Amino acid sequence: MAAPKNSKWFLEVLGPGEGHLHAIRSVLLSKDSPFQHIEVMDLEDYGRALVLDGKVQSTQHDEFIYHEALVHPVMLLHPHPVRVMIIGGGEGATLREVLRHRTVQRALMVDIDREVVDVSRALLPELHGGAFEDIRTELVFEDARRWLEAHDEIFDVIIVDLSDPIEEGPCYRLYTREFYQLVTSRLSPGGMISLQSGTVAPHDLLNFSAIYRTLQTAFKTVLPYTANVPCFGLPWGFQMAGKEAVPALTADEYHERLLRRVQGELKYLTGAVCAGHLALPKHLRDRIERETRIIKDDDPLYIYH
Amino acid sequence: MAAPKNSKWFLEVLGPGEGHLHAIRSVLLSKDSPFQHIEVMDLEDYGRALVLDGKVQSTQHDEFIYHEALVHPVMLLHPHPVRVMIIGGGEGATLREVLRHRTVQRALMVDIDREVVDVSRALLPELHGGAFEDIRTELVFEDARRWLEAHDEIFDVIIVDLSDPIEEGPCYRLYTREFYQLVTSRLSPGGMISLQSGTVAPHDLLNFSAIYRTLQTAFKTVLPYTANVPCFGLPWGFQMAGKEAVPALTADEYHERLLRRVQGELKYLTGAVCAGHLALPKHLRDRIERETRIIKDDDPLYIYH
Amino acid sequence: MAAPKNSKWFLEVLGPGEGHLHAIRSVLLSKDSPFQHIEVMDLEDYGRALVLDGKVQSTQHDEFIYHEALVHPVMLLHPHPVRVMIIGGGEGATLREVLRHRTVQRALMVDIDREVVDVSRALLPELHGGAFEDIRTELVFEDARRWLEAHDEIFDVIIVDLSDPIEEGPCYRLYTREFYQLVTSRLSPGGMISLQSGTVAPHDLLNFSAIYRTLQTAFKTVLPYTANVPCFGLPWGFQMAGKEAVPALTADEYHERLLRRVQGELKYLTGAVCAGHLALPKHLRDRIERETRIIKDDDPLYIYH
Amino acid sequence: MAAPKNSKWFLEVLGPGEGHLHAIRSVLLSKDSPFQHIEVMDLEDYGRALVLDGKVQSTQHDEFIYHEALVHPVMLLHPHPVRVMIIGGGEGATLREVLRHRTVQRALMVDIDREVVDVSRALLPELHGGAFEDIRTELVFEDARRWLEAHDEIFDVIIVDLSDPIEEGPCYRLYTREFYQLVTSRLSPGGMISLQSGTVAPHDLLNFSAIYRTLQTAFKTVLPYTANVPCFGLPWGFQMAGKEAVPALTADEYHERLLRRVQGELKYLTGAVCAGHLALPKHLRDRIERETRIIKDDDPLYIYH
Repeated sequence: MAAPKNSKWFLEVLGPGEGHLHAIRSVLLSKDSPFQHIEVMDLEDYGRALVLDGKVQSTQHDEFIYHEALVHPVMLLHPHPVRVMIIGGGEGATLREVLRHRTVQRALMVDIDREVVDVSRALLPELHGGAFEDIRTELVFEDARRWLEAHDEIFDVIIVDLSDPIEEGPCYRLYTREFYQLVTSRLSPGGMISLQSGTVAPHDLLNFSAIYRTLQTAFKTVLPYTANVPCFGLPWGFQMAGKEAVPALTADEYHERLLRRVQGELKYLTGAVCAGHLALPKHLRDRIERETRIIKDDDPLYIYH
Repeated sequence: MAAPKNSKWFLEVLGPGEGHLHAIRSVLLSKDSPFQHIEVMDLEDYGRALVLDGKVQSTQHDEFIYHEALVHPVMLLHPHPVRVMIIGGGEGATLREVLRHRTVQRALMVDIDREVVDVSRALLPELHGGAFEDIRTELVFEDARRWLEAHDEIFDVIIVDLSDPIEEGPCYRLYTREFYQLVTSRLSPGGMISLQSGTVAPHDLLNFSAIYRTLQTAFKTVLPYTANVPCFGLPWGFQMAGKEAVPALTADEYHERLLRRVQGELKYLTGAVCAGHLALPKHLRDRIERETRIIKDDDPLYIYH
Repeated sequence: MAAPKNSKWFLEVLGPGEGHLHAIRSVLLSKDSPFQHIEVMDLEDYGRALVLDGKVQSTQHDEFIYHEALVHPVMLLHPHPVRVMIIGGGEGATLREVLRHRTVQRALMVDIDREVVDVSRALLPELHGGAFEDIRTELVFEDARRWLEAHDEIFDVIIVDLSDPIEEGPCYRLYTREFYQLVTSRLSPGGMISLQSGTVAPHDLLNFSAIYRTLQTAFKTVLPYTANVPCFGLPWGFQMAGKEAVPALTADEYHERLLRRVQGELKYLTGAVCAGHLALPKHLRDRIERETRIIKDDDPLYIYH
Repeated sequence: MAAPKNSKWFLEVLGPGEGHLHAIRSVLLSKDSPFQHIEVMDLEDYGRALVLDGKVQSTQHDEFIYHEALVHPVMLLHPHPVRVMIIGGGEGATLREVLRHRTVQRALMVDIDREVVDVSRALLPELHGGAFEDIRTELVFEDARRWLEAHDEIFDVIIVDLSDPIEEGPCYRLYTREFYQLVTSRLSPGGMISLQSGTVAPHDLLNFSAIYRTLQTAFKTVLPYTANVPCFGLPWGFQMAGKEAVPALTADEYHERLLRRVQGELKYLTGAVCAGHLALPKHLRDRIERETRIIKDDDPLYIYH
């Protein structure tokens, strides 16, 4: 061990036997909200990072990968998304990407934790990029499940941008069969959702495959895909799901829609990447097909099992 | 910090500000060869792992991703690979994948370090899978560059399976323009190579893009692609390069060749994944196109810059 | 973080917010006994180390400090120790130090875990130094509390050499009022005990002061002292306790007894150090005097509170 | 590894194979001065801590041990200290302890780094306790060696309170024979100095014993002693040195002087501890007597050798 230039380290526990270490340049904020512990740090290699309950959510240098991968594939697959709901997404970057779509007239974001949004406004300006001020945006601070139960508004696309499910954390009830059935009921015909769904590392696949199987109880089409967000420390899984059958697009068709519908230039995605994402490695395909676990309100799933 | 079940940790330094921590179940071997420090550990989440100079090379649970991604795309792109050379590849898993190809009649593996091969034979049987005993295999323990200079044998495919270039490590002279020119001169018409080329994380792209630019000085076609090997801790880059122009294959064409040429079942790759790999994210495409750095014998590149 | 020569680290968790990291040269053993997890590692800075349930017990390079500090002060304070019992002390080094005393005719060691003794015999020869083979030694593998309940043998000195009390660990019932009362009843008139009693770092004093207060329920004299065993990562507390009043010795009196009674040369202790040890820092004196906590069978104390 | 409540850690590298980890509650400051990197963190177990070039200097919860152990023994051994110089001591706590002595009429503190003092004033009020404002205090920001060369003022006691010597750090020229000779020439008859002198852990003794030997080239009496400052992670060495022979004091004599001369109540030291400190463990005595290394301007000593 040589004497390091940096003496401060962020240790993200990835699982019982694995961690990701980052040199910290500075800590901008560390506080408890009513729902979770919120930290903003400036990391040597990743720039400003939002960390919730010890798990990195987004960093300045690679957030474009996560947010473009979460938002655009589903928005492009949908024929004409006008009304979009975001569940979670506190840092505002998912909203920022949704608002690039010229078709969008309403973007409702429901996050349980007002303080994450306040922190993002104050410290992570590149992440929201002014999206909270867009005239099409409505921000609601409430448990998204309760909001959906209380309202019967209909959306074309719902993007579920949540932390991983942690016992006593704010999110684990937003990963169950009952929740997905509620979500489906609020989609217009042809409506779709997308969500991040945990790591796809072979040694830690339970979350990804159980979400796949659970989505199938509520959606006709489920399309798992992968992307790689370096700050997460492990390769990552995403899923899109459609209320009805969803015709596949070629790389060129994605590209054409992208050019036509999306304002500004993307940094990560191309039409070819959208199509390429969906080529699921064989071991993932095998695993999700063998999965039998369905996540239920009375039998939830937590990471750190 | 709760008292951990495990008290022994493998810390892989990924860069000056980043590390990957693994709980160690047991240490099977730790020794210096004349060329590098060799360790074999049993990791809680990845099983047996080969570690050279502190960098993880392969682990039992995810080595199939790395070795299938390195070997099959180039072998399938080549119209009919008969004579194959492997440079490095000490654990024998690259050889194992090469030998699955029915077209292969000769597989020459030149690794500088006999002890890595001995360790693999003794402790990592799943990695080589008996490949060293195949009748088509020839093993040579020598510096691959010196071997190529001394022999004028011609190959259809050369697979460069080396550790990252480290100052005073055994490999940095196998990443230069002069080396690639030597390699090209030993390829048959239509000959191709593939190699791993470091992480593609946005904060640490120098290696990947400089290799791309350097390959272009010696090859007509360079095809960068990515795959994700969880034990590496960061998303990973690979490149194929062709002495001449290389026609692209569709997912179906890859699939058809795969079925026809490859014995046994792959665990990671499908035709669609082969094609999907090549859809390079936009920021990587932009970066390699802007790169001007060429790696030379008298101006080599080291990671840990 | 520079690339370290060592990639394997032993992390000892000292408390919820503190840890001690050691570079591992090799792991000689890692196994579960029926009572605890046993590891023997060769550490870069400390040589061979015995680790139980993740806590370092003894290392080759500094064990002389711990064992001399535990054994000799109480043996020298006692006027003429003939019959000595060791509770715990699996590595055999406490026994080794006891047997240096010319007055000793019987040394009974009762340790619950035969495997620790076997491991020490095989891998830690310097620690026991042949003490298990001494004609005065009797080894019993049994819970020491049960043994004391079943036998009414009387001892002049009893040395309690245990791990810290951990929930579900083998030792926490050997730190209670009821246990100390049992121990007193097995001492001859003028009999004494000594024990290690956890760190004396100001932020983590509970164990030390509660043991002090608990010893007072069973002994007329309690003499806390400190010594510093680098491998423990924090300054350390010990206590001696006497069935009756114990007259203090001067440095010269300790020295004279040491010369007369102890065979061979000590490495750590001198008469002056014996006396100096007992000069308790003021904050420790204040703290133990304010302590009210008594450790009981039905209200035990665990570290990692 | 359980998910920790804390995700931010301060890693102090103690040597090439050893480190001390602390959970960070918050980072109050992290900046480069012209001389060193300065950090102030609030640590879970130690409270506010001053860290220079990655090495912990003082923490709120145990600084009283270090500063009382450094200041009072030498001040009490001296018959009547009126004029005191402090070399280094940026946080102001050494000054605070010096000013408790009723005999003191002048306390000159020379620290090279004004920013450490500014940081202490702003963030570490308990450490200086208003000492910078005392009418007897004079603060000079200059290299102490240069100051001593330029001034011929005479002091009764000089306290050297420096970081460990690090290559290119601000202090290594204040540990040499030439420096100590300069210091002696500025002492009144009977004058004394004290200094911290690195760890006394058996595996890392070079600094302590070489300083002892080097002090002997300039002082008639050298009195090494030890104390234990938990935040330092290892047991610690100090030394006093006298221009002339220094008569030893008994515990009672220290106590009597302490009562008479020192204002307010100490938290760590008693007369008995002052005397007990000096009872050097045998292995340290042996080691310093065998040491031959003398630290010179043209052959300095660095930790991290």
